[in-house]
Amino acid sequence: MQQNTVKSDYYWMAKAIQLAKKGRYTTSPNPRVGCVIVDEHNHCIGQGYHVKAGTPHAEVHALHQARKSHEKSLDAATAYVTLEPCSHYGRTPPCAEALINANVARVVIAMTDPNPNVSGNGIRKLQEAGIEVVSDIMAAEAAALNPGFVKRMLTGIPFVRVKLGISLDGKIALENGVSQWITGPQARRDVQRHRAQSCCVLTGSGTVLADDPSLLVRPSEAQFSDYPLDEIRQPARVVVDSKGVINGEYQCLNDAHTTLIATCKAHVDTDSQHYLSVTENQGRVDLHALMQALSDKQYNEVWVEAGPGLAGALLEAGLVDELICYQAPKLLGNKGRSMVTLPSFTAIEQSISLSLIENRQVGNDIKLTYRPDTMSPRN
Amino acid sequence: MQQNTVKSDYYWMAKAIQLAKKGRYTTSPNPRVGCVIVDEHNHCIGQGYHVKAGTPHAEVHALHQARKSHEKSLDAATAYVTLEPCSHYGRTPPCAEALINANVARVVIAMTDPNPNVSGNGIRKLQEAGIEVVSDIMAAEAAALNPGFVKRMLTGIPFVRVKLGISLDGKIALENGVSQWITGPQARRDVQRHRAQSCCVLTGSGTVLADDPSLLVRPSEAQFSDYPLDEIRQPARVVVDSKGVINGEYQCLNDAHTTLIATCKAHVDTDSQHYLSVTENQGRVDLHALMQALSDKQYNEVWVEAGPGLAGALLEAGLVDELICYQAPKLLGNKGRSMVTLPSFTAIEQSISLSLIENRQVGNDIKLTYRPDTMSPRN
Repeated sequence: MQQNTVKSDYYWMAKAIQLAKKGRYTTSPNPRVGCVIVDEHNHCIGQGYHVKAGTPHAEVHALHQARKSHEKSLDAATAYVTLEPCSHYGRTPPCAEALINANVARVVIAMTDPNPNVSGNGIRKLQEAGIEVVSDIMAAEAAALNPGFVKRMLTGIPFVRVKLGISLDGKIALENGVSQWITGPQARRDVQRHRAQSCCVLTGSGTVLADDPSLLVRPSEAQFSDYPLDEIRQPARVVVDSKGVINGEYQCLNDAHTTLIATCKAHVDTDSQHYLSVTENQGRVDLHALMQALSDKQYNEVWVEAGPGLAGALLEAGLVDELICYQAPKLLGNKGRSMVTLPSFTAIEQSISLSLIENRQVGNDIKLTYRPDTMSPRN
Repeated sequence: MQQNTVKSDYYWMAKAIQLAKKGRYTTSPNPRVGCVIVDEHNHCIGQGYHVKAGTPHAEVHALHQARKSHEKSLDAATAYVTLEPCSHYGRTPPCAEALINANVARVVIAMTDPNPNVSGNGIRKLQEAGIEVVSDIMAAEAAALNPGFVKRMLTGIPFVRVKLGISLDGKIALENGVSQWITGPQARRDVQRHRAQSCCVLTGSGTVLADDPSLLVRPSEAQFSDYPLDEIRQPARVVVDSKGVINGEYQCLNDAHTTLIATCKAHVDTDSQHYLSVTENQGRVDLHALMQALSDKQYNEVWVEAGPGLAGALLEAGLVDELICYQAPKLLGNKGRSMVTLPSFTAIEQSISLSLIENRQVGNDIKLTYRPDTMSPRN
């Protein structure tokens, strides 16, 4: 495809990407999408972003604003969209059709739809209607808006972030289990934001038994300046409970929000809305099967707050996309509890190798974001 | 004291500090000192730095160059010195006298002599000779040139840096003891530079028994671009050997360089040049007494490469000025060997609290430099 791009295409697409980010806490299972409409004088006449599944898409908001503010027709306008406009009827009509009906001259798209079954259909529809289409403008930045949606569409597995709050010597608790508070309030606030943008928080039965946490977002602690508080959406909680030890008395099973107990125990009443039946692997919940089940539930981004056992098992299974460590400037000593349970390696090459992708100060702690060097299972 | 400073004083002092740094690997037990001589037109006419104990001081080098390059007398010149000129006869004549004899008009001093017995004497001598003296210009920067010399003069204890090469999960070795290589070549090169600028490398008998290391500087690995290789000076090795288990068969006792075995065992032949007899504390070498003994030997900067036991004991004793961790992007798992041995704490407040003073990337590893929050002994 011959593409005619101009410099300002990058400017407007950057603007559309900024708009898309406003949906970071609310759009799932849909992707975050932004749209900007620009007239023939290169002035912005409409902008919008997708807020929430079931409500209008970014293009519809932007076109609506453009029609209101712009007296002339849109037949010389360019639409910038961070994701290929949809071409199918879902809960809302297809956006490709809306752009065609608006009669825009040109559509610039950051990335094509990652779903291999529909990718390219929106572009084709626009082109067939005589609209000039330019695509793959700032595609990497647009993909970064939706790591979970993109990965789930491509692989049927969500994007998994494992969070650990650790001391400099890699401990998550003292010998007696005390862990409050290793990291500082700024790190804990950052965790709230990660919870809020995730579709579910995954933990293990050990954590529920020990701490009985709610794992919900506490908006007061998160101190969101950019969250539509009236739209607050809590992540689902998913508890890996291979042994079937979690009963109904825990906090996460007694509030108004979703909790799933993932188990491979046959005797569990799998009709209960709380249970997610997963195949077993050596007597434990098969973690690959679990992730496929979470993908089937349209969970794009999974945030793991678990103990050393589940964190280690996910790493060993090659299921971790990002390992996020909040590392406090403290030494808890050799008797403290180590952050990940792994086999006894006999050579350094067997250990889990990571690549540091971000290192930043968060209060007195440092936030270290790693990508495991291989995502293929280790055994 | 009324001080008349001009803006260019800071410029020239920064230059003198840069010069002083050239002595970082060679001056001990003397401090690193730089000197610049500037004429009445604010042109540099002489510069020098102290290279090695027993050879001329910075002022002498700078005055020599000034006399050679400058045809007129120096009676309108200003001398910038990073440390108060000495006023006593040591292995070289006093520099205050050299400045007086050169008849300079003005002397600008970054920091006064930290030795309380002589501090101010050099300044007084210059003033008595009618020279205008300005002091405390960039004093903090000048003190940072000589953390060990300054601390030793003030407290009778050297400046102690503890180095640990660790994984993200705070392990220094696998369960089987394998530790080569957790960190990368750039981190190991940085360690060579730290060894080279230290007066001694301190380790424990366990490390010697396990690894039989030389602990010398390997100039080829250090890749010094700023080291006068013909002047290469190896740090002394000091082995803490409370139990008296180190005999003469180890590498560090069989080369041309100094090794001291610090022990509290009475039966040891303390006449041997290799032994340093230290008082005991509960059957072990008293670490405070050890540091005083190292100070008596004029060791300014002590670089510790030891196992978890000695590292933990030094931290517990409040004897660590800097904890330097080279943290590799690897997970060795809970069965690996933890970086510091500490008591079993029952509350987070009992753990060792640190302040991060530097965080930088070194190859694929990060170098984290911490200052323990309290230097007072913990028990």
